[in-house]
Amino acid sequence: MAIRLSTDRAVPETLAATRALVEPAIRSALDRLAPDIHRVALYHFGFADSDGRPGRGAGGKALRPALALLSAEAAGAEPEQAIPGAVAVELVHNYSLIHDDVMDRDRERRHRPTVWALFGVGPAIVAGDALANLAQETLLERATSGRVRAAAALAGAAARMIAGQAQDLAFESRVDVSIPECLEMEANKTGALLSCASSIGAILAGGDDRVVSSLAEFGLRLGLAFQAIDDILGIWGHPEVTGKPVGSDLRQHKQPLPVVAALCSGTRAGTRLASMLSNGSLSDQAVAEATSLVEEAGGRVRALAEADADIEAAREALDRARIPSDTRARFLELADFITTRNS
Amino acid sequence: MAIRLSTDRAVPETLAATRALVEPAIRSALDRLAPDIHRVALYHFGFADSDGRPGRGAGGKALRPALALLSAEAAGAEPEQAIPGAVAVELVHNYSLIHDDVMDRDRERRHRPTVWALFGVGPAIVAGDALANLAQETLLERATSGRVRAAAALAGAAARMIAGQAQDLAFESRVDVSIPECLEMEANKTGALLSCASSIGAILAGGDDRVVSSLAEFGLRLGLAFQAIDDILGIWGHPEVTGKPVGSDLRQHKQPLPVVAALCSGTRAGTRLASMLSNGSLSDQAVAEATSLVEEAGGRVRALAEADADIEAAREALDRARIPSDTRARFLELADFITTRNS
Repeated sequence: MAIRLSTDRAVPETLAATRALVEPAIRSALDRLAPDIHRVALYHFGFADSDGRPGRGAGGKALRPALALLSAEAAGAEPEQAIPGAVAVELVHNYSLIHDDVMDRDRERRHRPTVWALFGVGPAIVAGDALANLAQETLLERATSGRVRAAAALAGAAARMIAGQAQDLAFESRVDVSIPECLEMEANKTGALLSCASSIGAILAGGDDRVVSSLAEFGLRLGLAFQAIDDILGIWGHPEVTGKPVGSDLRQHKQPLPVVAALCSGTRAGTRLASMLSNGSLSDQAVAEATSLVEEAGGRVRALAEADADIEAAREALDRARIPSDTRARFLELADFITTRNS
Repeated sequence: MAIRLSTDRAVPETLAATRALVEPAIRSALDRLAPDIHRVALYHFGFADSDGRPGRGAGGKALRPALALLSAEAAGAEPEQAIPGAVAVELVHNYSLIHDDVMDRDRERRHRPTVWALFGVGPAIVAGDALANLAQETLLERATSGRVRAAAALAGAAARMIAGQAQDLAFESRVDVSIPECLEMEANKTGALLSCASSIGAILAGGDDRVVSSLAEFGLRLGLAFQAIDDILGIWGHPEVTGKPVGSDLRQHKQPLPVVAALCSGTRAGTRLASMLSNGSLSDQAVAEATSLVEEAGGRVRALAEADADIEAAREALDRARIPSDTRARFLELADFITTRNS
């Protein structure tokens, strides 16, 4: 990969500073929820354990909020101006995780039981619905033009995210998904919300259209790279690091990019993979074999090349935005971090 | 009951006129959905059958859209001005039906298989998410002050609706729900969205605060009456008319008002009912017996009295709104229709 490894401590510091700024706002948004839902939401975000005892807030990496804060800086504003956008994007992201876990029957996330596994399917659907709605409420509680534009942008991004999830589900019963179809699904499912995260601060700060649209393009490309790496980790990542069971994508007949690339490779490994995947459920041994076949058919290399190309396109979009050079540098550090992570 | 029976054809005409005005707007909103979701949504609204062949659009009674259009008239505007609000409220109502059916495992609605029963749980969750989001998109696609206020009001109503659904779920594992708790749940679950429907047209038309808040109160009270009647139909209604299986509320250990009133009645029938309901799943015979006990303990009479009182309070709220007398008359006709229906 051409992507350089981040050698300094800048990204962990950016993420820690983001959490310090955004977490209190997330907590106070969650405080608006009814008690039955509040309990579930606090657990999901890691603010509480399953019995409601305070937790340390292991709720994800805060990448999206960090992008949101940076995008306000990109438009020449203080990061604080992006906080309602950072909160709203993080709420949408987390509602999608809660609902996706129900649909995928995933029992574990971030090394803990998922919401539906712990509280049941009904409370998980309700909690997701509540977070989705809370995202809009957070933005619309004050009707400044920035907030209204941000709410519309978020609704548009969520529409694409939901469409991507529908495509992802539909792909499970197919073995003929093309690479463009797969990339479109991933642009929708992951790219749209990262695109919104990367521009919502600029929208709230009243940034001009060029900055907003360039940052949105940066975020979309970053999202595609993010997803390509996520797909690789979903197949070859270590469960103890990723917090997800080994081979779950293959077991669930998902069609992430490496699998689709392998199936479309025209190689013998690709053909063997296709016949394995059309044979219903896979044993542990079959999952291991399928994993090797994806690799042999060039699926991993193809996904890495996609991530490389996307990061390059993201960098070009950032150049078009013409933003302060230190903000640009921190956007690129986050991009590097995302594409060199192992969880 | 003190509620008079509607003797003329006014309500069916109002509803038909509403559908003629609102249905094309709902269809064109749905056309924005991705194909996989569009198909599911068209089925749910009755615009298509399970194979995608055009249907007649058996999607409910259009009560909420009718209230929305009337509320624009109440503020002195043309009903057309309420259309985006009518569409948005109907989208939220229908997303809640799709998700509720998943949670309640209800296999039939409006005499047809429910979305999850036909397409699966995943597509049902996604379709609900998509409709919820589409409601906000519909309002926010133009940022007039009326639309922004309407979007905020809708998000607030949806928050209460979701909280009510969480309470409804939590009640299933309890036999000690009090009447005030039950009424609060029903005000949230049903009242909040009817309140929004009854005022959103006035909001879009720029109506003054007195009109908006009086109509909102009217809708809340109407919602409580609506739910009380719904609860009665859920226990004593004929399945071939209601389109719902007989005794499903009791079977699912729901705590609708007649059941809660019976359990709180202090009667011997109430005590016997409590011991039956704490005994796990009910046979057909036990459902029939429990139904008689609810009646014997005064549950039906209590729910009817609640509906009467709510309609009276709704009427008083409408008087406070001081709106044109023909609009007032049509609001009251809808209220009568709602409380004298049998499905």
